[in-house]
Amino acid sequence: MNKINPYTFGKVPEPTIRRLPFYLAHLKLVAAKGEEYISSTHLAKDIGVDPSQVAKDLSYIKISGKTRVGYEVKPLIDVLENFLGFSHKHEAYLFGAGNLGAALLHDLGLRQFGLYIRAAFDTNPEVVGKEINGVPILHVDEFPRLQEEQGIEIGILTVPVEKAQEVASYVASKKIRAIWNFTPVKIKVESPTTVQNTSLYAHLAVMFNKLVFGDD
Amino acid sequence: MNKINPYTFGKVPEPTIRRLPFYLAHLKLVAAKGEEYISSTHLAKDIGVDPSQVAKDLSYIKISGKTRVGYEVKPLIDVLENFLGFSHKHEAYLFGAGNLGAALLHDLGLRQFGLYIRAAFDTNPEVVGKEINGVPILHVDEFPRLQEEQGIEIGILTVPVEKAQEVASYVASKKIRAIWNFTPVKIKVESPTTVQNTSLYAHLAVMFNKLVFGDD
Repeated sequence: MNKINPYTFGKVPEPTIRRLPFYLAHLKLVAAKGEEYISSTHLAKDIGVDPSQVAKDLSYIKISGKTRVGYEVKPLIDVLENFLGFSHKHEAYLFGAGNLGAALLHDLGLRQFGLYIRAAFDTNPEVVGKEINGVPILHVDEFPRLQEEQGIEIGILTVPVEKAQEVASYVASKKIRAIWNFTPVKIKVESPTTVQNTSLYAHLAVMFNKLVFGDD
Repeated sequence: MNKINPYTFGKVPEPTIRRLPFYLAHLKLVAAKGEEYISSTHLAKDIGVDPSQVAKDLSYIKISGKTRVGYEVKPLIDVLENFLGFSHKHEAYLFGAGNLGAALLHDLGLRQFGLYIRAAFDTNPEVVGKEINGVPILHVDEFPRLQEEQGIEIGILTVPVEKAQEVASYVASKKIRAIWNFTPVKIKVESPTTVQNTSLYAHLAVMFNKLVFGDD
C-alpha cells in the first residue's frame, strides 16, 4: 500500500481527527460483513453524527462519496489508516515503569495502530533490568545514548505526579517531540514538543458523575 | 471524612468535571510541599487556565477563595476528592479479558481513585478460570447471577470491536448503569445507562498528527 504523506492533506481540525478513528472502526465492521459501499446517511447514523459532518470530516482527507452508492469501504479504510498514522510504524519510549507504566507495557493492542514501545526507563532498582512483554526496562541514564542511536521521538509519560513536569522537561530537551501524558498533571514543554493528555482519572470522574446525573 | 453527596452541588458542566482532576493533582503536589494556601492566580497559571475559569469551576463545588490568601489547600483537596467520587468506593466489572482487558486488570492505580474491579468476564476457555492481579476471570454466563448478588453498576468494556455493541446492549439490559468504553466503537445504549468513551486509538491519532503538524 502506498504511504500517504499527511502533509498532502494540510492541517485537519482536532475534533475531526478524534472522530476519524470511530469511522475507521465502524468501516472495518462493515467490511467484515462483506459490504462494499456505505451511504453517508448510514455511516452518519451508525457513528451518531450529522451526515453533513461526515461529508465535511471526510472532505478533509479528500474523500467524497459517489451519488447513490456512497463511500467505497475498503479504499476509505486504507486512506484513514494511512492518514491517521496507524499503518506507519511509530516507535516510542515509556518513562516510568511503575504500576500504570507496567500495565501499559502489557499488550494494549497499540501495535495494530502503529505504536511500538522500544524501551521503558525508570530509576527504581527493583524494576530496572527487567522486561515486560519483551520491552526492556532500563535506567533513565541510558536514555540519551539510546535515543541518539534510535532517533525515537515519542515518549509515553507514566511517572509519579511529583516527577511529571521534571521528566517531561528533560525528555523534551532531548528531542522527544511528542509526549503522551498519562499523568494527571498539566505538563508544560517548549515547542516543538507537543503533549497529548490521556487522563484516565478525568474520564473516571466524568463517568462517576454520569452515574449520578445521567448523560447530558 | 464526611461523604459529600454530589446531588448537593447540582449538575456541573462536563468540561469543569474534566478539569477538576487536574486541579486536584496539582493541589496534592502543593500540599506535599507543605503549602497551606494557593492563590487563584497561581493555581490558574500552574494549570494553564484563566483565573476567572478557576473561580467559576470552583464555584460549582461551592468553594470560593479568601481575599489575599486564596484557597485553603487541604480542605479543597477533600472537597474535590469527594465531589469527583474518588474517595468513595465504586465497584466495577470488566467485560473482555483479551489483551487490552488484561492490561487494564494490572494495577492502573485506579483504586486510589475509588475504582475497584471485582470480576472480569469473557467466553474464551483459555482465560476463563484464571485470575489477574487478584481479579477472577469468569464465564460471562455467571454475570447475571453475580450482579444480582453484588449490585455492581459499572462495566468496563474491552471486548473486540465486533462484539462491542452486542455486549454493551446486553449489560445495559442487566442493570449496568455506566459503561466505560475502551473500544473504538460508538456504542449506543438505552437511558438510564450512560457511556464514557476512552478511545486510546483516537488519542494516538491526535498525537501522531501533532508530531507532524505541532500543537494548535
